[in-house]
Amino acid sequence: MSFDRLIKGIVKMQNPTVAGLDPKLDFIPDYIKEEAYKKYGKTLDGAAEALFEFNKGLIDALCDIVPAVKPQAAYYEMYGWQGVRTLQKTIDYAKQKGMFVITDGKRNDIGTTMEAYANAHLGSTDIEGEKVEAFGADALTVNGYLGSDGINPVIKVSSQNDKGMFILVKTSNQSSGELQDKKLDDNTTIYRTMGAMCEKWGEQLMGEYGYSGVGAVVGATYPEQLGELRKALPHTFFLVPGYGAQGGGAKDVAPAFDENGLGAIINSSRGIMCAWKKEGCDPKDFAQAARREAIRMRDEIVSYIGEIKL
Amino acid sequence: MSFDRLIKGIVKMQNPTVAGLDPKLDFIPDYIKEEAYKKYGKTLDGAAEALFEFNKGLIDALCDIVPAVKPQAAYYEMYGWQGVRTLQKTIDYAKQKGMFVITDGKRNDIGTTMEAYANAHLGSTDIEGEKVEAFGADALTVNGYLGSDGINPVIKVSSQNDKGMFILVKTSNQSSGELQDKKLDDNTTIYRTMGAMCEKWGEQLMGEYGYSGVGAVVGATYPEQLGELRKALPHTFFLVPGYGAQGGGAKDVAPAFDENGLGAIINSSRGIMCAWKKEGCDPKDFAQAARREAIRMRDEIVSYIGEIKL
Repeated sequence: MSFDRLIKGIVKMQNPTVAGLDPKLDFIPDYIKEEAYKKYGKTLDGAAEALFEFNKGLIDALCDIVPAVKPQAAYYEMYGWQGVRTLQKTIDYAKQKGMFVITDGKRNDIGTTMEAYANAHLGSTDIEGEKVEAFGADALTVNGYLGSDGINPVIKVSSQNDKGMFILVKTSNQSSGELQDKKLDDNTTIYRTMGAMCEKWGEQLMGEYGYSGVGAVVGATYPEQLGELRKALPHTFFLVPGYGAQGGGAKDVAPAFDENGLGAIINSSRGIMCAWKKEGCDPKDFAQAARREAIRMRDEIVSYIGEIKL
Repeated sequence: MSFDRLIKGIVKMQNPTVAGLDPKLDFIPDYIKEEAYKKYGKTLDGAAEALFEFNKGLIDALCDIVPAVKPQAAYYEMYGWQGVRTLQKTIDYAKQKGMFVITDGKRNDIGTTMEAYANAHLGSTDIEGEKVEAFGADALTVNGYLGSDGINPVIKVSSQNDKGMFILVKTSNQSSGELQDKKLDDNTTIYRTMGAMCEKWGEQLMGEYGYSGVGAVVGATYPEQLGELRKALPHTFFLVPGYGAQGGGAKDVAPAFDENGLGAIINSSRGIMCAWKKEGCDPKDFAQAARREAIRMRDEIVSYIGEIKL
């Protein structure tokens, strides 16, 4: 019912980062794709199989040094229900390897519909009295535009299943300010208001280390707002996208952390997945290239925040 | 690249309503479920099969009088990738029967990730040069909290594939005002601002009948705001949830329409799906009960707006 499991993983590995698993076909070495197409043809089934083999390689190479993975739902849905089956298999595999799984789905709806999303991704589905896990991630990203009716069902399911959520507050993209930076008549901004709502919602899911199970997504590309929000939202754990490919550096993400080096987890997707391309190494070495980049990223970030302490 | 196809369907059938397909197991007659469990067991496969049989019955009974269906993604994800396969099969079946399909996914992300969602649900996926449709709906609901970076990719894919989107503006739930009603320092509200963004984005997808392919979700439970937004957003087509089970009546939705009876489509999900329970009819008659309720709803709404004219 909080992020305590995630926090323990971060401290144990001394690594506050998460590897994004956004496996577009372009990112996958040819030899994996050819193998998959041989079995299933150049079809959604073939593509979905290649995605899974790629993910397995990454998870195997990262699971002892990176505490969490973040599959992005869009890249699985793009490959149809077959891709969505690969999402489920990927979550399962990462959990078997001890990783904390954040499904990046930015889901949002109200009431029983939101509860259906929460049960789909974090809880279980009732089939004539049998409880079956549909996707079974540890946390889900969520969009709070609909207010409490969209968040309370996730709180309920999280509380029953020791899970958590990250709510979009200040996103990493260039146009995030179009709506999020708008000033309200009480002189605050929309993103500050959404942040304050996270802090409030989080009271229902408080953990042992001062952080609740209601986290916030805050982009690495806005270091000033990161620092401002860190101070304003002392119980809200941050998921920070925008490091690497989107332009944020280790110095930019440093304000996301508290004095113990806790309070945030920094995501890198393309930087890790495509390290083999950037390195120009043998494609068969893609997973080790990902590991080298994950270590480089970890060391760079930890050099700014020091030892991570509970 | 607009809602012209939807508008033509509405005018042809003189019916500005859409049937929500949110098939929870509870809504499905026992005889359908037993049949499915016999084949696949009380499993996600069994549940997903029951969902599909139920949907097919509804689509068969509605397709000559209701122009569109709106499957809610959450209720399919709840049944795992097997449920998501049923979503795809349902979309396919409804399209075969000539219906316009709105996937209610409230998807949101940025850049290439949002493009992946748009391609998944409205466009096609490139597999080594082959274009494959993953889900292939006609429209997708979208959450605009992330700004233009989250909408432009959907505009691009919609424009290439003659599709459209509905962006959350003022949602039907009780707590929608927590964020959406907040006043900005220019004395407008967040939902008005989001509405104005829809009107602006829509300029890129203008259709022949005065409405663009960028619609807005506005709840039946806020009739005053519905009327206010209808005046303020003359080119934005509304998808109106909240009729029936959520408390909105035909009188409440009347302000959503323009003087030609165009400009909005009213959703009913449980009202139609569960009509057989409310009627207390033979469960085998569930589809005809849905049809009776769809006709009643159509007649009630049309009695307020008169003939629908292009």
